[in-house]
Formats: sequence, C-alpha cells, structure tokens
Amino acid sequence: MADYEQPVVEVPTLTALLDGKYVEVRELTRKRLVEYASVLDDQRELDRAAFRERVLEVVQELAGTGQTGLGFPVEYGGGGDIGASVAAFETMAFGDLSVLVKVGVQFGLFGGAILQLGTKPHHDAYLTDLVSARTLGCFAMTETGHGSNVQALGTVATYDVATREFVITTPDESARKDYIGNAAAHARLAVVFAQLEIGGRSEGVHAFVVPIRDGKGRALPGVRISDDGRKIGLNGVDNGRIAFDGVRIPRENLLNRYADVTETGVYVSDIDNPDRRFFTMLGTLVQGRVCVGGAGINASKVALSIATKYALGRRQFGNPGAGEELLLDYGLHQRRLFPLIARTYALHFAQEVLAGQLHDVFSATEEVDERTRRALESRAAGTKALGTWHASETIQECREACGGAGYLSANRFDALRADTDVFTTFEGDNHILLQLVAKGLLTDYSTSFGELDQLGMVRFVAGIAVDTVIERTAVHKLLERIKDVIPGWDDGDGEGDVDAGLLDPEYQLTMLRWREEHMLSGVARRLKRGMDSDMEPAEVFSRCQDHVIAAARAHVERLVLEAFVAKVAAMPDGGNKIALNLLSDLYALSTIEADRAWWMEHGRLSSQRAKAISREVGELCRRIRPIAEDLVDGFGVPAELQATEMMAPGTREGDRTGA
Amino acid sequence: MADYEQPVVEVPTLTALLDGKYVEVRELTRKRLVEYASVLDDQRELDRAAFRERVLEVVQELAGTGQTGLGFPVEYGGGGDIGASVAAFETMAFGDLSVLVKVGVQFGLFGGAILQLGTKPHHDAYLTDLVSARTLGCFAMTETGHGSNVQALGTVATYDVATREFVITTPDESARKDYIGNAAAHARLAVVFAQLEIGGRSEGVHAFVVPIRDGKGRALPGVRISDDGRKIGLNGVDNGRIAFDGVRIPRENLLNRYADVTETGVYVSDIDNPDRRFFTMLGTLVQGRVCVGGAGINASKVALSIATKYALGRRQFGNPGAGEELLLDYGLHQRRLFPLIARTYALHFAQEVLAGQLHDVFSATEEVDERTRRALESRAAGTKALGTWHASETIQECREACGGAGYLSANRFDALRADTDVFTTFEGDNHILLQLVAKGLLTDYSTSFGELDQLGMVRFVAGIAVDTVIERTAVHKLLERIKDVIPGWDDGDGEGDVDAGLLDPEYQLTMLRWREEHMLSGVARRLKRGMDSDMEPAEVFSRCQDHVIAAARAHVERLVLEAFVAKVAAMPDGGNKIALNLLSDLYALSTIEADRAWWMEHGRLSSQRAKAISREVGELCRRIRPIAEDLVDGFGVPAELQATEMMAPGTREGDRTGA
Repeated sequence: MADYEQPVVEVPTLTALLDGKYVEVRELTRKRLVEYASVLDDQRELDRAAFRERVLEVVQELAGTGQTGLGFPVEYGGGGDIGASVAAFETMAFGDLSVLVKVGVQFGLFGGAILQLGTKPHHDAYLTDLVSARTLGCFAMTETGHGSNVQALGTVATYDVATREFVITTPDESARKDYIGNAAAHARLAVVFAQLEIGGRSEGVHAFVVPIRDGKGRALPGVRISDDGRKIGLNGVDNGRIAFDGVRIPRENLLNRYADVTETGVYVSDIDNPDRRFFTMLGTLVQGRVCVGGAGINASKVALSIATKYALGRRQFGNPGAGEELLLDYGLHQRRLFPLIARTYALHFAQEVLAGQLHDVFSATEEVDERTRRALESRAAGTKALGTWHASETIQECREACGGAGYLSANRFDALRADTDVFTTFEGDNHILLQLVAKGLLTDYSTSFGELDQLGMVRFVAGIAVDTVIERTAVHKLLERIKDVIPGWDDGDGEGDVDAGLLDPEYQLTMLRWREEHMLSGVARRLKRGMDSDMEPAEVFSRCQDHVIAAARAHVERLVLEAFVAKVAAMPDGGNKIALNLLSDLYALSTIEADRAWWMEHGRLSSQRAKAISREVGELCRRIRPIAEDLVDGFGVPAELQATEMMAPGTREGDRTGA
Repeated sequence: MADYEQPVVEVPTLTALLDGKYVEVRELTRKRLVEYASVLDDQRELDRAAFRERVLEVVQELAGTGQTGLGFPVEYGGGGDIGASVAAFETMAFGDLSVLVKVGVQFGLFGGAILQLGTKPHHDAYLTDLVSARTLGCFAMTETGHGSNVQALGTVATYDVATREFVITTPDESARKDYIGNAAAHARLAVVFAQLEIGGRSEGVHAFVVPIRDGKGRALPGVRISDDGRKIGLNGVDNGRIAFDGVRIPRENLLNRYADVTETGVYVSDIDNPDRRFFTMLGTLVQGRVCVGGAGINASKVALSIATKYALGRRQFGNPGAGEELLLDYGLHQRRLFPLIARTYALHFAQEVLAGQLHDVFSATEEVDERTRRALESRAAGTKALGTWHASETIQECREACGGAGYLSANRFDALRADTDVFTTFEGDNHILLQLVAKGLLTDYSTSFGELDQLGMVRFVAGIAVDTVIERTAVHKLLERIKDVIPGWDDGDGEGDVDAGLLDPEYQLTMLRWREEHMLSGVARRLKRGMDSDMEPAEVFSRCQDHVIAAARAHVERLVLEAFVAKVAAMPDGGNKIALNLLSDLYALSTIEADRAWWMEHGRLSSQRAKAISREVGELCRRIRPIAEDLVDGFGVPAELQATEMMAPGTREGDRTGA
C-alpha cells in the first residue's frame, strides 16, 4: 500500500545517537540501575519508613561507586565533569525516582549550594563527606507561605556582632521551611536561605550552613523538625518541615562566595545591586532545573516503552470472524502514543543542547558574561517546564492506553506518575518558570517601549524586581529570516497545493518563529496599553497572564524544534535518518495542529491547510507504525526496568494462532 | 470597574438546587460520610491489608443503616427507589473512594447482576443477605485478555446433561478473570460471565452464580484465586484474579431472566437474535455506568472546593512594596479553575437528567420500548466518559494549582486522583464507550447509506455485531432547528458585531448542534467511501477512529449544554440565576473555545469572532471571581471532608495585615 520508502531502523545506532557524548556514563548508569532493579519492588512492598531507609542505603552505595559525584571537583572525590553528571542523573530516571530525587537533594541541591555559593573553607569542610554521602544534608529554601517567590521568604538570620554569630529565626508559621527533602529523617546539615539582617538593616536573602541534627540523629536545640507525612509519590524521600527558634551559628557558616559579613558586622559584596546579587546567587543553582527537566523526559521514555509493547501484545475487537486487532493497529491508539514518542525525541535533543550549554558555562575557566548565563537560565527554565509537563501527560496517556493492566502498580505507571507529578511544581513551578522566560524575552522589547521598565511592568511579569542586562536575543531577527523563506509558506489557498511544503522543516520552523514573534510583540503592546491606562499593574498583568505564558511556551517549542531539525540534518543518510525525519515532522505538525486555531485566528493558516496538517499527522502515524517498537527500543530502557506483569502469555504479536 | 450586575449568591439555595429531588438522601449521605471521616486518615495510615478490612467494616456498617441498599426491592431489605440509590452513591464520592467502589462492586455490580439477570429463586436465595452485606460477592466479567470486548471473553460454561450441572473452565491465561473487586479476599460468591456451551454448540455469553469460597474464606476446589496486588489507587478494594478448573455448579445457578437451559439441555430464550439477547442482558447493567459518571463529577467538586479555598488563602508575588497577591486574583489561576467549576455544574445537571431517565426506565411498571432503553444506554455511556475524564483533568489541575501543598496526601488530592484514575477505564473504557455512542448515532444514517450495515461497517464502529432497532434520534431535526435561529448566528464578519450573541444560549447551542451534525455526517461519508474502496474494514475504521470519537463527544457536549441551559431557564430570577447563567455561558464558550479550530476549519467561525470568544471567557472569569467561593460552597462538600493541612495560619483572605 505504501508508495514511500519505509525505513529500516538500526536500534543500537539509534541508542548511541541518543546517548551522544556520554555514552559510557549512560551505559554504566543503566548497568547500575539493573543491579538495583529490586528497589522497584521495594517501592511497592516496603512501608514508608523502611523504604526511606532502603533508598538511603541505595544512594549511599551509589555514592561509593562514584555514580553520584561526577559533577564535583576531583580533589573532593568527584568526577570533575558537569556534563557527565547531568547525563548520569537523567539516565537514573529510568529507575526508581525516590532514589533519583534523593540523589538530587543530596548532590544537586545541598551539594550544589555548598559548591556554588560557598568558598574554599566550606568546600574543604563539607565536600568530601558530602560527595561520599557520609554526611547528609538538605536544601532549606521553600517555606509554607513562600514557594516560588524566594525573595519574599520570611526566615531571618540576624548578625550578632557581640558573639560573631548569626541567629536563625522562623518568625511565623508561614515562614517555616516546608517540603524539604532529607529533612524529616536523614539530614545532619541544612543550607538555609534567610533574610540577612545586620543592625536592623535587611540585606536580602542569603544562604547559611546550619547543623540541624546531632550524631545520633536527634534534632539540635532550637530546631523543630516535623514530617510532611505521606505524599502522592516519592515516599522514599523524607520531606519535612523545619522551624528555627533563635538557632546560633558561627559567622563563617554564611556561604560567602557573593557576599560576606565582616567580624564587626559590615556587609560586603562585589555585586552592588541587591537584586542582581540575588539572581546571581540563584543562577548558580540552574543545574537542578536542567536535571529535573531531563529526568522528566527520560521517565517518559519508560512509560512509552511499556505502553507501546503492551499495544503490540494486546488484541481487542476486530473484523467479525477474523480474530482481534492489535491495539497499536487502531488509528486512535497511534494518535495517542506516536506524537508523544516524537515529542520525547524532540525534547531529548533540546535537552542535549541545554546540557551542553550548562557544561560549557560551568566548566569555563574564564568569567562567563551575564548575557550567556541569563540565556542558559531562560533555556533551563523553559525546557524544565515543557519536559516535566510532557512527563505528566505522557505517563498518564500511557497508563490509560494500558487500561486495567496500567492500573496495577507492578506495571510501573503508578510510581512513575505519582513520583513525577511534583516535577511540574518543584525546582520552580512551571507557570512561574515560563513567566521567567517571558520576562527575558520582553526585556528585549523594553528598548522599543522605553517607559515600560520604568513603570515596573517588565519586573512585574516575573513577579520579581530584577536589574537585567538589556540583551538582544534572536527574536528581532526572526522577522527578517521569515522573509527569506520559501514563497507560499504562509498558505496555499488553492486546493491543489494545500499540502505543499508541510514536510519542509523550513516551513515548520517559520510557523513556530512567526507565532513566537507575534505573541511576544502582542504581549508587549498589551502590557504597554495597560500601563498607559489607569489600571493597577496587578490587574494589567492578571489580564495578560495567559498570553505571557503562551508566548514563552511558543518560544521554547521553537527552540525544541530547532534542536530536533538540526540533529536530524547532521545525521548520515540511512534508515535511522528517515525514521527521525518522520518523527521530526510529526513533532512539528502535531505541535502546529494543537495550536492551529491560533494561526487561523492570525491569518497564517487557511482552514484547508489546517485540515491538511491533521491529515498529514494521521499519515505520519501510519508510516511510523511499523517502526514503533524500534523507536521505543532506541530509548534504551533496560528490559529489567520495564513492566513485569503486563501480559498474559500467548497473546504477543506473532503468537497469534488461527485466522 | 464593573458595569454589570454582580450577583449575590444564596449558598443554601444553590446546594438545594443541586440536591434536587433527593435532598434528604443526599443530606443523610453527607452526615454519614462525616461520621466516617476518619476513614480518610485510615486510607493514608493503614497498610493495604488492614485498610481492606477497615473498608469492609465501613461498607457493612453502612449496609446496616440502609444507605447502600436503596435500589433493591423493599421485600429484600432494600429501599425500592433507583433514583435515590444513584443520588446516595454519587454523594458518597465526597468521601473515601475505596468505600465507594466496594459499595459499587457489592451492591451495584454483584447485586445488580443478581437482581437484573436473575429471577425470583435467585432473588430469594441471595438478595437479603447481599443487601445486608452478610454475603459478599463479586462480578467476574473482565478477563486479562478481554476487557471491553465482553462478547469475546474466553471462560466456558459447558452444560453436562448427565449431572445437570454447568462446568466452568478457564481455557487459557488470557481468559482468567482479572481486576475483579472483592475477589482477592472477601467474596463468597461470584457472578461469572462465560460462553455457554451445550452439546458442542456455543450460545454466547451468559452469567452464572459460582461459589468461590467456603465459610472460612478458603478458595473452593477448582477455584484459583490470586491477588492483583498494589494498584495506583483504591487499595481498600481487594481486586484479584480467578481461574476455574472444571468447577461444577447446579443448572439453577444460571441467571435465567433472558435465557435458560432445560434439564435435558435445550436452550430456550424469548429473544431469538443472539446479539440482541446479549445486549439486552448487558443493558440491564447500565446503572453502574450512571453511578461511576456521577461519582466522577462529585469527586471533582471536592477537588475544586479545596483548590479554590487554597487560592483564597495563599498569596504570591505582587506589586513591589504592596504585599503579595492572592492566587485567585491571577488571571491564569482563574482560567485554570473557573471553566472547570462551570463544567462541573454543567455535568451535574446533565447527570441529573440521566439519573432521572434511569429511574423512569427501571421503575416502569410496563415494558419499556427498546428505543428508550438504547437512548438511556447511549446517554449513560457518554456521560460516564465525559464525567470521568472531567474528574481526572480537574483533580490534576487542582493538585497543580496547590503546588507543594497539593502533593501532600493529607490534602486529599493524592487519593482523589489515584482512586478516580481508573474510572476512565472501568465500567467500559471511555474511548470504547464513545464509540458505542457513535454507533447509535450512525445507525440513524444507515437509512441514507443502506448498504453500510450490510457491509458490516456500522457494526465495526463499535467493534461489536449488533442488531439495533433503527431509530431516529433528534439529530436529523437539528438542521431544521438551526435555520430558525437568530440571524448572524454563523458569524459576524464586521468588527462591530463580533461579540453579538455570544452570551445567547441559542447561539451557543446552535454552534454545538451544528458541529455534531456535521461531524456525524462526515464520519458516515468517510466510512461509506472507505467501504466502497478496496480497503479492509479494519483499516477504514482505524483511519476514521478519531473522527468517530470526536463526533460522539460533540454529541454528549451538546446534551450537557442543553441540560444546563434548561436548568437555568427554569430557575426563579435572582442572584443564583445570574450566577448560574455566568457559569452556563462560561461552560458553553470555553467548550467552543477549546475546539474553535474546528469551527474555523468548517467556515462557521471567523477569526475575529474566535478571538472575541476567548476574550469573553476571560471576562466571565473576572465576573465569577467575587462569587467563586460561594459557587464551590454550593457544591455542599462538608468541611470535614476537605483538606486538613492546607494552610499555614494567618494567611487566609481577611487576615491580611499592613499594606
């Protein structure tokens, strides 16, 4: 029936392509996960307390192998390779996610704060024991009443010049630290974020190392710790609450890379502007977001591998008298799974670009300019948001696509879904992150709308006051590029050429670029108009908020497609390239299809062409059907980590007997 | 700022409106749930085995109060009121959902099968002990390899004329009964669905009462029972697998309302056509679907109540220097929650219509014609699908809208989400149910496309062969009605009147009716064209499947809006009517907005008007903001069943101090 070239996929080569630069690290991580596959059973069978201890044990054993310390300096027992540490962490998302998140808490958040915000004395004091997981710590930033708005948190650190100590205090219940991983049971130390006060003057949020438990695991005087109790998922991680009643720590416990307090109580910093200082500090913690986004993308691979194989084993209905059809031969089932496979590949390559940038910035021997750092932070925020939403959507769709079997915990969707659910919220709520992305983009526009910044509008967009370097991203250049593209890109109105160019990446990219540019300039105009009226800034922002988020999302989707298209273009000819081209087309067209109303509303898509895009998505799904199993096998999720009770025997493809 | 009338909502009156005819039953159910509120804690704190026993205890105690037997005849200890039993069941979804589902298994599925498929001897033998929950039973329909395709199940019941017994056998692993509630621990009896074979001839699927455990809870000889183990949710229900090795039961254990086997092995039935007989049997079990849909809608009310109150307590970001804003004052937050509140009201009223029809059909003293029964089944299938998808979407959105607090199990989203997740799959997978709806609608078209049925196409749509009475639903009349509607309904192209009529229910309904009609005729044409080609029927169907599902969904959305509009129209003037009018408009316009691309593609919506609809949705959200708390309070979810650890003190609306 097909009049096109049907690709033959080489699965090992495809996995190697995905593994990229860090093939050994990823291969080793998979091996470790298989060795520890029993933790997936423990997650279901042990009670909460026992599972916490089991996860601790696994994390400590992994630390002993060097698996978890790749990002730390060699002199403290680390691997000295940021990129490798991201690759290892992402790949660990194939296994139990409590283990993953406890690793993230210990080595990413706690360890990362000591490394990035501390100086040599802190490194010497803590890093070796931290990297080996002999000392457990936590990252006490979030408060009950202050989540993503870190600048507004309520914990106070007052400098007592008489004793040369900081006094840490929780003024009210909304300022208690909350949801803090490692806090409820295992952490001996906490990096506490608090408002620094010296002589009655506030210097803004800073980080302090605060001992919270003694050698026997008992809370220290003045430290009130409670357990957050059962959560939707990640019950192998001991999240808890911490409040401080005048806890005293030495002056040296301020993590003083960007600011310090002298013995006599003088505040000193190389960065004069307090907002800029705050965001510089926060910016050093970007690796956490990069890791969470990558973990979400890899968790999606597990779900898609299981659901695709299930659909190749399970039959249902069919032609009367002719035996039942495989689920994967149903058009709707293809429509449900294949665009998600395509988007997983797309996000994987976008994440690879991001992780590469992270590695370069944090491995640079010279000072990296602020523009580059901000671009990295924006890209990390956007990729984290899209990658984690993708995980939630994908795992849920896969669960439903497996029906009752998907509901059984043994088949992994339970923990996958429950554990990743909070990924959309932690390391920055996704909506807030997209606002951050939008703020960066809108800052470009502040040249054209000079008074905007003055009015506090741009600052309001991210909900934070920030002194950003005015930068010019690629956005302004987009309009020019658009003009260069093939004629007819904006639409063929005649019936004849309605399909023309749909599979041209230049057309697809142009569509995404045009949307991004148009949304962004539209938001800027709306904000300006609002500020020129007598409306309250809060009201102006509230009315534009969905538009702001949409613009940021459009921006990130464009970056993702660019990464995918570039990757495919660089591949050698062959079956794998043809296959990934199909996926790239499917990602692009299903992305356009999902928002096709927008292009129609803005005169950039005729109704005929919109329908042609939907038809093409269906056609691409049919072409992908024969290689679907290869494409999920390419993800490289070890069989031992896939579902265990999925199928009754004798019902797999090929086992079919009779008509 | 407002130039419109802002309604004042009377909450008790609103709750009374939702309670409707069964206000006492619902009030009493709420009282019971509050008495048993501790089961919500048990769900989190007890281990699986202990929680199962606790849930059994609660179900048995509730049975003792008459709460769970309202739908059974008075002579067997029931309440003799189908409508009341649905109202009671729906309302129980405010509480723990393992309790709800165990009630559903015992009284709805097991009890319903005995009542509907059995005759007086079965009623006399089982109903009294079943209604009092002294005898527990299970409903053994689903098999590992045969879920929604009941007609294809593999278990066999062979009649042995020598002993006058049926011999129940599980021929292979794909035919084992699976996911059966009450099977793993508590059921003494099972209603087993099996292929009836007499003298080598198959008579199709029939139901049999099969004892599976003795008085001490041990599996009987030939009955292999295993536990499905941990599930995503509903772990208070003991789901299990059952296989039969030649288990013998007396001839009288065939539930023989629609067919019987004489002692000498002659098969007799009043319904000649085997397909029709099968669907008549299944049709009597429609109450289960009605109940599950209603439960999903009510579980959504709990989630929306919690999330709305959280958003009225939690502040975040805001104008620099002016204190933080309430979450609910953010436009995006309103956009996330309010359309879901509106859809919950809409679905509630649609469910009320459905439950009324169910009551009428099953309480009728005369034989109800098949057309009415089929209409009921179709409506039940569609409402179940939309109601349970709504629950999944709403609970998830509410969880995310509460951030980290939403992730704590104490705040209820955990169990709500996990327990309702399978609602989209059980009692019929939602996609299959919508195909069933589509099949019914397409049957109308088989008059215009005579050869369709002959070609097996219509049968294929639902994957089942069925001899349906050709009926004429309202669909054909839609086109005529459309012509009568206000001029300009299809679009104003000038800028001036782009908003005209958006809030006119006649416009909104016309849009939904036109979509339904157009999609349906489009599907029929595509199927016909496909059948006229040389394509395999399976391939034709596979390619149209998303179109088929979309048409069914469009049909149900139209029914839902009609129910909402009719309800509001009948209300007395006043604040509540204004408020529900806002919600009705929001439901209609957000429904149109979500699929606006479709109307644009089909020339029924200009881009200007599409944008006007989006603006109006935002405007409606702003108007609803001041009454949002009243609207969720109107749901009548008792405070004791809402979240317990949601807020830090001192941060609720009204508690704000300072600027």
